[in-house]
Amino acid sequence: MRYPNSTKTFHKVISHSNRGMVLEQLINEANKYYLENDLALIYKKPTPIQIVKQKEGKITDAFFKSPSTTDYNGLYNGYYIDFEAKETTSKTSFPIKNIHSHQIKHIRNVYNHKGIVFLIVRFTKLNETYLLFGKDFIDYIDSENKKSIPIDYFRKKGYIIKDKYSAKVDYIDILNNYGGLYGKKSK
Amino acid sequence: MRYPNSTKTFHKVISHSNRGMVLEQLINEANKYYLENDLALIYKKPTPIQIVKQKEGKITDAFFKSPSTTDYNGLYNGYYIDFEAKETTSKTSFPIKNIHSHQIKHIRNVYNHKGIVFLIVRFTKLNETYLLFGKDFIDYIDSENKKSIPIDYFRKKGYIIKDKYSAKVDYIDILNNYGGLYGKKSK
Repeated sequence: MRYPNSTKTFHKVISHSNRGMVLEQLINEANKYYLENDLALIYKKPTPIQIVKQKEGKITDAFFKSPSTTDYNGLYNGYYIDFEAKETTSKTSFPIKNIHSHQIKHIRNVYNHKGIVFLIVRFTKLNETYLLFGKDFIDYIDSENKKSIPIDYFRKKGYIIKDKYSAKVDYIDILNNYGGLYGKKSK
Repeated sequence: MRYPNSTKTFHKVISHSNRGMVLEQLINEANKYYLENDLALIYKKPTPIQIVKQKEGKITDAFFKSPSTTDYNGLYNGYYIDFEAKETTSKTSFPIKNIHSHQIKHIRNVYNHKGIVFLIVRFTKLNETYLLFGKDFIDYIDSENKKSIPIDYFRKKGYIIKDKYSAKVDYIDILNNYGGLYGKKSK
């Protein structure tokens, strides 16, 4: 059975069943828009899976592995782009444990190798989405001995990503407008 | 049972059982070397898998999907790097059908977005490995109506990758030495 507002219903369903799915879907839509309009080439990496048993291409026993890098990478105007996207239901802070230690290592590496690296963090209950450059994320971790990053840090150091009709989570727009192409600039 | 020359034996076994595996292993070793020595960040993308059935993270029914991009990408000194690696048993030419049409599209895209894109092709029976920049690959496809690329084209336009002790398929060395960092230079 299909409803006229099926898209809305779908969004509601997945937002309850799987934390992180809505932001992922919005970013996938943005990436599709960037690709189709020849603006950027950004892909989500497939989830790494350890295969235990397979026969003639049919997999009958396997499990998910923990990712050793971030979920997204790609190319924008010659620049290497790399980021991780996370949602939180907290209204006050982002728990750092959401980013695994090997992912933090990867973020440091990308920054050191002059890539453009950032987090996209959505505070779902506030309906606010921020882009926080890797340098500012690492700076926080290295200087503060805390388990979470307060939303004020995102408001001060990050860039809010506004929803756009064409590309719902238009993060490339931030890179264009705020000199973020050089990846290391802080506010 | 373990043999003193177990590594060699392993190489032999996989070279017979799975075409393409030896080159893949050599590139993975090179990538590991680049990562550990902080020279570059290049990763093989996980093989995309379509999951049919799973329960609590255990996958019991799934199959391999055809990749829509290349197998490898990453970052070298701020440059976006993207490539596909293939082996052929032919002594005379590389069959173009080894690169899927959507991969050719992706190679065109990366070139147009100013990334560094190339093929690594190993002629196993000649023990010769070439790096061929995406531009030269696309040029050939666009100008010749042929099903394969003769080895002479690799010898003329490509760069031979010599085996090194430290990183067996040292393709970064080519990028350093031949101005290939700009990705668009042809011989």
